[in-house]
Amino acid sequence: MKIGILISGRGSNMVAITRAVQDGTIPNSKVAVVISDKSKAPGLGKARDLGVKTVVVTRRGRPREEHDAEIVSELKKHDVDLVCLAGYMRLLSSSFVREFTNRIVNIHPSLLPSFKGLDAQRQAVEYGVKVSGCTVHFVDEELDHGAIILQRPVEVLDSDDADTLSERILRIEHETYVEAVRLISGGDFRISGRRVLFGSAVGG
Amino acid sequence: MKIGILISGRGSNMVAITRAVQDGTIPNSKVAVVISDKSKAPGLGKARDLGVKTVVVTRRGRPREEHDAEIVSELKKHDVDLVCLAGYMRLLSSSFVREFTNRIVNIHPSLLPSFKGLDAQRQAVEYGVKVSGCTVHFVDEELDHGAIILQRPVEVLDSDDADTLSERILRIEHETYVEAVRLISGGDFRISGRRVLFGSAVGG
Repeated sequence: MKIGILISGRGSNMVAITRAVQDGTIPNSKVAVVISDKSKAPGLGKARDLGVKTVVVTRRGRPREEHDAEIVSELKKHDVDLVCLAGYMRLLSSSFVREFTNRIVNIHPSLLPSFKGLDAQRQAVEYGVKVSGCTVHFVDEELDHGAIILQRPVEVLDSDDADTLSERILRIEHETYVEAVRLISGGDFRISGRRVLFGSAVGG
Repeated sequence: MKIGILISGRGSNMVAITRAVQDGTIPNSKVAVVISDKSKAPGLGKARDLGVKTVVVTRRGRPREEHDAEIVSELKKHDVDLVCLAGYMRLLSSSFVREFTNRIVNIHPSLLPSFKGLDAQRQAVEYGVKVSGCTVHFVDEELDHGAIILQRPVEVLDSDDADTLSERILRIEHETYVEAVRLISGGDFRISGRRVLFGSAVGG
């Protein structure tokens, strides 16, 4: 399985996935390319340090479709089977999503469907939930909406603000994202309605 | 602390709270009355078996305000400090909520704000979440909306349907509801915005 990872910033989830691919935790896979829409994303240097090819595709004022078409073309040039969004700060166009139906995944720092969109950790703290977490899901054309692959809960402490909660969720994100990619890399799942079912449940 | 519990059905959370009061898990408290809006609620017999006084106040086609006024009058007659909804299937009128501001609590079988309203467990299964749970919250005039006291996560299994998930959440509900009532019975909390903060965080 060839993986392409899209980043906009520090790419800590990109690093976690790349390491898991390289040490065999995610088996029979390769990170073929890391693509950033920001030329100064700190994650680019980290990807190169890990021996992964990087490509920068900035928006340059183009319509989203044109920008996405160039990214899709880079992904295809590298024979990418699975696209992982890792702090990629743009909505994907429907043509991008259609090119990789059920082959684009994202991680979001809340237990969806609660707290979609930006600043999910702050939303959680302000709402006063006692449990938040993270969600790995397939990407469709709606924001933070696709079928859910894996979720992990994280306790919200009375002492938490958005920053401390973000930090604790981020630590769980790395292992959750790796586990989710490992789960779907085997292909041993099916999607029933909105449910992603694995292993022995696949036959059912 | 005198507790009044409102039920409409089997009242399994009412039984859990009553037992916890009687065995001292919830200290310095008494269940003063169990009120049902259904004369045939199976929970009524269980309450009497536990030695708790029961009252039936049916709606009888009256406006909600009138029905609620009779319930409030029963609660006051029994000097109730804290009202626990336990499978009580009605929205409270604003006058009821105002009479007991921050002294009415409810349990809901999801991690709010996800899956408000009826059939929360079925909503969760159909949405395809991998983590659901239960929420104990203060009751305000909006459905399943008040400040959150305690939440506990429950894993959703690939083999789950609404019934099996409901069963597993219900088991967690009992201990969560008891723990939440114990936490607020001490009075050692404050509400900041929507956040309910306990103990050492109270000074902050």
